[in-house]
Amino acid sequence: MSVTAAKGFSAAGIAAGIKENGNPDLALVVNNGPRRAAAGVFTSNRVKAAPVLWSEQVLRGGEVTAVVLNSGGANACTGPKGFQDTHATAEKAAEVLAGHSAGEVAVASTGLIGLLLPMDKLLPGIEHAAAELSPHGGEKAAIAIKTTDSVHKTAVVDGEGWTVGGMAKGAGMLAPGLATMLVVLTTDADLEAATLDKALRDATRLTFDRIDSDGCMSTNDTVLLLASGAAGITPRYEEFAEAVRKVCDDLARQLIGDAEGASKDIRIEVINAATEDDAVEVGRSIARNNLLKCAIHGEDPNWGRVLSAIGTTKAAFEPDRLNVAINDVWVCKNGGVGEDRELVDMRYREVKITADLAAGSESAVIWANDLTADYVHENSAYSS
Amino acid sequence: MSVTAAKGFSAAGIAAGIKENGNPDLALVVNNGPRRAAAGVFTSNRVKAAPVLWSEQVLRGGEVTAVVLNSGGANACTGPKGFQDTHATAEKAAEVLAGHSAGEVAVASTGLIGLLLPMDKLLPGIEHAAAELSPHGGEKAAIAIKTTDSVHKTAVVDGEGWTVGGMAKGAGMLAPGLATMLVVLTTDADLEAATLDKALRDATRLTFDRIDSDGCMSTNDTVLLLASGAAGITPRYEEFAEAVRKVCDDLARQLIGDAEGASKDIRIEVINAATEDDAVEVGRSIARNNLLKCAIHGEDPNWGRVLSAIGTTKAAFEPDRLNVAINDVWVCKNGGVGEDRELVDMRYREVKITADLAAGSESAVIWANDLTADYVHENSAYSS
Repeated sequence: MSVTAAKGFSAAGIAAGIKENGNPDLALVVNNGPRRAAAGVFTSNRVKAAPVLWSEQVLRGGEVTAVVLNSGGANACTGPKGFQDTHATAEKAAEVLAGHSAGEVAVASTGLIGLLLPMDKLLPGIEHAAAELSPHGGEKAAIAIKTTDSVHKTAVVDGEGWTVGGMAKGAGMLAPGLATMLVVLTTDADLEAATLDKALRDATRLTFDRIDSDGCMSTNDTVLLLASGAAGITPRYEEFAEAVRKVCDDLARQLIGDAEGASKDIRIEVINAATEDDAVEVGRSIARNNLLKCAIHGEDPNWGRVLSAIGTTKAAFEPDRLNVAINDVWVCKNGGVGEDRELVDMRYREVKITADLAAGSESAVIWANDLTADYVHENSAYSS
Repeated sequence: MSVTAAKGFSAAGIAAGIKENGNPDLALVVNNGPRRAAAGVFTSNRVKAAPVLWSEQVLRGGEVTAVVLNSGGANACTGPKGFQDTHATAEKAAEVLAGHSAGEVAVASTGLIGLLLPMDKLLPGIEHAAAELSPHGGEKAAIAIKTTDSVHKTAVVDGEGWTVGGMAKGAGMLAPGLATMLVVLTTDADLEAATLDKALRDATRLTFDRIDSDGCMSTNDTVLLLASGAAGITPRYEEFAEAVRKVCDDLARQLIGDAEGASKDIRIEVINAATEDDAVEVGRSIARNNLLKCAIHGEDPNWGRVLSAIGTTKAAFEPDRLNVAINDVWVCKNGGVGEDRELVDMRYREVKITADLAAGSESAVIWANDLTADYVHENSAYSS
């Protein structure tokens, strides 16, 4: 499972003491080859954490031999010292994994913004993790990158003779602009970096880019895809891209399903839009409407809040042609009252909102969460 | 006080039975002249309530003799019947106030979206309100337009021989694009409609347009300014515009101070921006960051969430030159850790966030609220 489902990878997850509570906080993923092609997608937030700035440089080379990931601190907004710390992390990993260069070690961090990492714990932790590396270590690695996640998140899809697997973390600040949270995908397929990059961008555009738990974009979002070539097979692009998309979709859904304080997963499908961009813009506007998110929490099919959210967008539509269904009951027809709202059953965790713009034939699905008192509590009672 | 502080106006507020709980729900404001110049600013939400569509037409004529306002129903997303109901409301007011035309009667509604108004109660209510009209009725009118407001909101500024007064309602769905909620301002100054329009737009741009309680733009936002000319004085434009701005600012602050579930009023000042638009964009992005709003509720000076919000904007800035103060403590300097966050005292209702973009000399102030479990409760427990 996880990042070691594909052949040619080993991983470890340990407690280095970065988290004060002693929970696992350091993961190491190593590509044992024979190839070391890689692609990455990062946050579009202009305030980027040091490990994002570092890993963006590493990925330009198209090769990654190892990824060091830590929870317990985002190393964001930490100035030159924070960047030096990320550099030292990569150097330490390269030294421990003899024969590798720091320029091929990606780094990812997650946790509170604005604090320097305890390097006196992190650097020895890398040695410890290297000693624990195992072809069965994917699960432990996935556990070590958790922050407020209640469960660790992994996914695997098998192709014909090759595999794509991965792990993810993320429970809040979950509205990626180009990627989300920390995700490492691995495959044993034999592919060039450029092919990995295209498959990864095609997949994230339709998966991580279309979840929006709380409208807040992180400084640390990182999605990496590493290929070992150990399967000795080069799949057709379409098959491979489909497998990557499935793994990303699975992980993205797990992120929404475990979002901080959420009691509902909301599937927002915008249909009959003039363009796909319109559909995404409208979906995001609905996803970010706090009043609607509260209504869904209260199991109130308040379609007026859906319309008021649609009305703030620049998408093509006529107000008196809009239709909205909640759990398949068309409560709003032609911009006004439709079927009886009492028919809407909202008892289950998944709630489906369908917004028909009646302006074309494009569509998009955005996943979101409700807004709950638990979310407020989790994000006000202590720093995270 | 309120809309009858200026000479030449009468008003009434009564319970017409639109609200099921029997609270006041219908207000009537009448301009007795000699002039009836008026200006209006309306929501920029593209899904506009019937009374907004109606009143936009009325205001094109530049004259308003009366305003009918109801709480207990927004008459939004109600189709052709909803528009007919608004038209019938204006006709009824014109009939009752003999000698006036329906084309000079503005209508404003507030309450739940997607429900038709009970016209069998509203129309007799207009007769009832007309019978109660009084030059001292401003307070009652302000009370009758409340929805989830805990208090009614009025403001008055006196010029030299003339007055500007007004009333407002609004406690949620409070992120106006061009105006906010229902506001009626009156003056006895003797001014043309074009002058009123300019003063009103200049004022709303800096007041109602710069509050953002919950990021949700209403379908019903309406701000009207009526001039009776009864003082027989035409003030200098600058003096009058300043008075209008002060009344708007006072009312806007009252809206934020009474926002649903809020425990904090957050004054966000963006300084040293390259342009005023940049300052407003950054201020709004900070104002709408749910994670930050939760942190403020928890009295946690979490400046990392301020930076992650700034990073989502297109404003001119360099991440490593950003500075952030919370209640005057510069907790973030040059994009990294600044003064000790323990120095920040957040016990009081008003919290001040200063974001220094170090990119120019423009600035803007946005007012916002924190995000609380009470907000979630108030907006999930029942429809509003």
